Amino acid sequence: MLKDLVVKNRSYRRFYQEVPVSTEDLRSLIDLARNTASSVNSQALRYKLVNTKEENEKVFETLAWAGLLKDWKCPEEGERPSAYIIVMYDLSVGMVKHRDEGIAVQTILLGATEIGLGGCMFGSVNRTKLAESFGIDTDKYEIGLVLALGKPKETVKIVDVPESGSTHYFRDSNGVHYVPKRSLDDIII
Amino acid sequence: MLKDLVVKNRSYRRFYQEVPVSTEDLRSLIDLARNTASSVNSQALRYKLVNTKEENEKVFETLAWAGLLKDWKCPEEGERPSAYIIVMYDLSVGMVKHRDEGIAVQTILLGATEIGLGGCMFGSVNRTKLAESFGIDTDKYEIGLVLALGKPKETVKIVDVPESGSTHYFRDSNGVHYVPKRSLDDIII
Repeated sequence: MLKDLVVKNRSYRRFYQEVPVSTEDLRSLIDLARNTASSVNSQALRYKLVNTKEENEKVFETLAWAGLLKDWKCPEEGERPSAYIIVMYDLSVGMVKHRDEGIAVQTILLGATEIGLGGCMFGSVNRTKLAESFGIDTDKYEIGLVLALGKPKETVKIVDVPESGSTHYFRDSNGVHYVPKRSLDDIII
Repeated sequence: MLKDLVVKNRSYRRFYQEVPVSTEDLRSLIDLARNTASSVNSQALRYKLVNTKEENEKVFETLAWAGLLKDWKCPEEGERPSAYIIVMYDLSVGMVKHRDEGIAVQTILLGATEIGLGGCMFGSVNRTKLAESFGIDTDKYEIGLVLALGKPKETVKIVDVPESGSTHYFRDSNGVHYVPKRSLDDIII
């Protein structure tokens, strides 16, 4: 059932770095995104696939990890993503629509979950540095989100929003990551 | 497989209007969206469920259908959606992020596809009129997309982009709807 995939598809930030993600798998995920809806069917999104040690390091350096976890800066060597997808807009199409990007990246991550992978979306990216590292022509492409991918090495649990109303995610002393979600009755109005 | 759902989940614009969509089904779709990612886990999205004859008509009046089909204005009575979901941002959360909305609506539509429904996302909406009709306080909520839902009554096929490069969708004389999609090699750069 889709619900199982949706619930299993959490934002993972620690991975079995030694488990590779093949280019074939990455392409199959983009093929899912290729078949999704976009504004006026414009299909402005483009993708750069990254899964080599050298290139992974270049992407890693540009990402800001888990802003809400003050005691944790980023995954250590050995627990870093095995692959990335850099999402870009082809500016010649003239349709920079963030909704389209949301549609595509969610589909990619659901697909990743289905094949035993997991990932995290990064909006906080040093795009100037990333473009330089990969020779991305920013007159032609606008960099959107970066997706980190790998075999997840952490437990992420959905919990109710506490009485304080805070939706901040947090970790316990065992490194289990908790994500408070609003109730159905709070979001249907 | 997720791919089957993704391919089956097309933008449908004609429906078996006599087939209702229950409030229970709509709530189950929102429950999928409830479990998705959002920027800093902010969960700013709110949903209004619509599935009565009177309210359906009020939503229908605010939608602009299929801008690329010049000979077709909108579905006729009898082929209109049986339900709608009005997606809104709770402005008190302060996170109007269209990517979050894309993530949520794609998940909802995949869920709808799984239970034999289909839908269409509307960005071209008379939001002023919609807010008035439903008493939505626009100081508190910003209306995003509107999702139309129902049991699809049309065939939608994915085809290759023609030599002209046009991604415009079109219909043949039998009313079959075609959606040209770019190739995998065109979108991976």
